[in-house]
Parts: sequence; structure tokens; C-alpha cells
Amino acid sequence: MQILDGKITAEKIRHEIADEVQKMVSAGLRRPHLAAILVGHDGGSLTYVNNKVKACHDCGFESTLLHFGTGITETELIDEVKKLNDNPEIDGFIVQLPLPHHISERRVIEAIDYRKDVDGFHPVNTGRLNAGLPCFVSATPRGILELLRRYDVRTRSKRVVILGRSNIVGKPLASMLMQRSYGDATVTVCHSHTLNIADECRRADILIAAIGQPEFVTADMVREGATVIDVGTTRIPDASCARGYRLAGDVKFDEVAPKCAYITPVPGGVGPMTIAMLMQNTLAAARKEYYH
Amino acid sequence: MQILDGKITAEKIRHEIADEVQKMVSAGLRRPHLAAILVGHDGGSLTYVNNKVKACHDCGFESTLLHFGTGITETELIDEVKKLNDNPEIDGFIVQLPLPHHISERRVIEAIDYRKDVDGFHPVNTGRLNAGLPCFVSATPRGILELLRRYDVRTRSKRVVILGRSNIVGKPLASMLMQRSYGDATVTVCHSHTLNIADECRRADILIAAIGQPEFVTADMVREGATVIDVGTTRIPDASCARGYRLAGDVKFDEVAPKCAYITPVPGGVGPMTIAMLMQNTLAAARKEYYH
Repeated sequence: MQILDGKITAEKIRHEIADEVQKMVSAGLRRPHLAAILVGHDGGSLTYVNNKVKACHDCGFESTLLHFGTGITETELIDEVKKLNDNPEIDGFIVQLPLPHHISERRVIEAIDYRKDVDGFHPVNTGRLNAGLPCFVSATPRGILELLRRYDVRTRSKRVVILGRSNIVGKPLASMLMQRSYGDATVTVCHSHTLNIADECRRADILIAAIGQPEFVTADMVREGATVIDVGTTRIPDASCARGYRLAGDVKFDEVAPKCAYITPVPGGVGPMTIAMLMQNTLAAARKEYYH
Repeated sequence: MQILDGKITAEKIRHEIADEVQKMVSAGLRRPHLAAILVGHDGGSLTYVNNKVKACHDCGFESTLLHFGTGITETELIDEVKKLNDNPEIDGFIVQLPLPHHISERRVIEAIDYRKDVDGFHPVNTGRLNAGLPCFVSATPRGILELLRRYDVRTRSKRVVILGRSNIVGKPLASMLMQRSYGDATVTVCHSHTLNIADECRRADILIAAIGQPEFVTADMVREGATVIDVGTTRIPDASCARGYRLAGDVKFDEVAPKCAYITPVPGGVGPMTIAMLMQNTLAAARKEYYH
């Protein structure tokens, strides 16, 4: 059994990006610049955004954090999005989700210029992804594929079972993994209305759990020699941890790991890869790799 | 075994649409207006477009056919697209594919105003479809779901196996069928790199063949009591037919049908439903059901 180490891999990627940025700066170009909009004071969101800002620093990017109180209206927030759309100094930006209930996440996402949408959530990007066209790919699915690639875990002709059909993980991952250019795998997507979910899981060469149910995947659901990717990051209150909580994955790691060829830990698996891919997307935005 | 009769169902739908149009006209509104752009003289394309124009007539729609020679340049064609985008008399339009090789289908599709894209091929529509948002859904997948619905073939919690991962059938169908609001099924997509494809097919409660390989699906690949949807329409030269060819589906109908609970014939199955759904999309465009 080998650990797919997202932390070390993400660090390598940040170094690679920093080297590229150094070359850009030497060539007289300005540094890539990522902006993040954060609304309110949700602890998880604050941590995520801070980690993204820190990653920008590691990569040699400029970063700008716009932090608004929960009193901001949808119209005001969309105006801020438009300012970032129009600001030639900003290569890409994200709006950290979730947003307060009085703001439509959908309308905010659709207000983002898709050419700066480094989260890859805008319909133009998800639509182009589906059609196999160049676009910003949302960071978690991209991070999973990159982690597999760097450990040389092949996907072609493999049976991939994805647990979860969310817009930001399950669906784009399924779309990519079935395409010739990304995965060329035989993909099955399972969810809350799937019957005999354990049977489906046992058929997987690669099992990807993205349902946010701690320790849902048990040893009996995994076949010997499978690769298991754990996207879950549920916060479980735990007084013995310094931060007052621990992160729980969707996979019962201790009993599943011994059966696996490869497995991601939580934390230190998919999470760091997600942030590294956001950096990759920002670099691509600065270089106008997908759009002019 | 029951035939899922697309011809009769499509006729019913055309009548329903014609009734709606009658009400619109009585209320002083103008008739829905569909335009079609056709380039060149491919026999298949001519037939398809003529069938669409005829369906418009049956539904009480206005229709406009713009027919260009293969000498038209990409720029000229995109200018024609822009004229239709800007023409307030046109509710929706399609560009009949395939286009000659010197024209990028992708650039032409992306030039269409997504609010008039009744084929549902523009990334904004495919992206919104993926996210479960209101949009134009491409006609073949929509027609298949509608046919199942009208025969009360349930999809929830069913195992659906789709053969083929094309942008216009396999992928959008998979995206819809896995979503709670459309299908809520457990979906597997198979393709040329799938191993043991017969095993995958035998697990299907609903098997949808969309690979364009005549008679690919044989009786041994279908489990007793399954529902089989045949999207294939390959033209096979046949001197004994008046038109010089016959249409062949992806399913070996004669041997598969006796095992099925439900099956679509070719012709007279998915094909007529596709055109009926294009009419539904045009009616929705005229009523601005998805976009303003």
C-alpha cells in the first residue's frame, strides 16, 4: 500500500510554479495576481482563504483579499465582482463559498468573467470542460487527476466509481474521467438513491469518495488492490485537538488502507492538491493559456 | 415486451404544441419562429432539416431555412449567426451539423446567442444543464427522457448504462440521468476503451446505445426485463429500399426485443422524439421560459 501524499506533491507543484513565476519576472512580466472575495466570518472559509493567500505567497503571486461583512447585499457583491472583472491587474479571482443565504451563489458565479474564473465554476467553463475544450477546471477534480498522474496511477480502461454528484467534485470528475483526453475510464456515479452501493464500490479499480459522510467507506466495500481517493473533509469537534476539531474523511482509513494499492490520507491528500491547482489555474490565467 | 413508440409520442407532442401555439395566437402573440442554417448538400443533413421545417409547420411555427453553398467562409457563416442573434423575429435557431471541414463547428456554436440556442450545444447551456439549472437541453437526450416519462418507465435508483460518450448524446444524457431532478439513476458510461462491455451492459436496468455501430448490442448483452433505448441511426446502402438505404440501429432488435420490458425501434423511436423536443425548445424560447 502506498500513500498518495498530497502535501508533498502540492509542495513540489508550488515550487514548480514559483520557478515559472521567477522566469516571468526575469522576462519583465508582472507576477500573477489572484484576488479572493470573502463574505462573513465562517471559520472554515477563513481558514481556506488564508491557506490560498499563503499559497500565493509561496508561488510568488500577488494576492488581494477583499473581506466583506455579512451585511453586504447581492447587488453590492456583484458590483465588487464586476470591478475585479474590469481590473487589468487581476488575472483571476475566486468568491469563497458558501455565501450568506440572502445572496444567490449562482448569480454571483455567473457575474464572474469566465476568463478570470480560476475556480472553474462558471457555466462557460463547466460546459467547455464537458466538451473537452480548454478551460479552467475546478481545482478539486483537477487536483485528484494530477495526484493520480504524478504517482503514475493509470485510469485508462479502469473502472472508476465516484460517490457523490456535487457540482464541484462528483459531476466534473465524472465528466473528465470518462473523456479520452483526461481519463478514458469507465465511470459510474453513485449517490443517495443508488441501490447496493457497497456492490458498486467493490467493482471499482479506483474509488473516489466525495459525499461528506465521515468513514462511510469501510473495508468490505473496497476490493483488494484498489486505489481509494478520499475527498471528504468533515470537521468533527474534538477537544483534544489544538483547533478544537479534527478533519474526518469519507473513508475509514485504518481498515481500508491495508487493502489498497494506493490511498489518500485526510488531511494531507486531496486538500493540499486543491489549493495547488488553484495556483496552477491562476498561472494559466496570467499567461492567458485558455482565453484571450 | 412493449415498444416505446417515438413516432406516435412525437405526434402527440406536436399536437400539444400546436394547441399551445393556437392559444398564443388567440392571445395576440406571434407564432414561435425557428430558423435553420444549412451548409452544403449532404443528403442526411437535407433530410433532417426538411423534417424540422415540416415539424414547424405541424406545430404552427414560422420557419426560415438559410441554405448556403460549401463555399461560405467561417467568417461569413458567423456573420449570418450574428444576424439571427440580433433578429427579434427569430426565437431560436440551429446550425445543422456537420459543417464543411474549413469551418470550425465549435466557433460557430459559440457564436450563437445561448438564449436562442435551441439545440442546447452552447457551453452556457451544457454548463447550466450540468449544474441542474434551467436551460436548453439538447434534443436527443431530452427526447429519450421524455419518451421514458410518457411510458412511465422509472429511472430513480435504476442502473443505467450508456454506450457512447458523445457531446450531443452520451455526456448530456449521463449528466441528466444522474441528477436528482432528471433521473436520479446510477449511471455508468461505457465507450471504446471500456473492458468487458458485455458485462457492463448486462448490469443495466436501462441500456442506452449511442455509438453508431449497427447491431452492436446483442441478446447476450441484455438482461431479462431490461429497457433498451437505441439511439443509433446508421445509413446502410440497400437497393431494395426506395431511398437506396435503410436505417440501422445500434441494437440487434429481433433478438434483443423478446428479452426486454421496453424497447425503442429504429426508425420510429428516438429519432422523431428528437425533432419533437427541438419544437418544445423553440416554444420555450418564444415564451422566454429559461432566459429573458
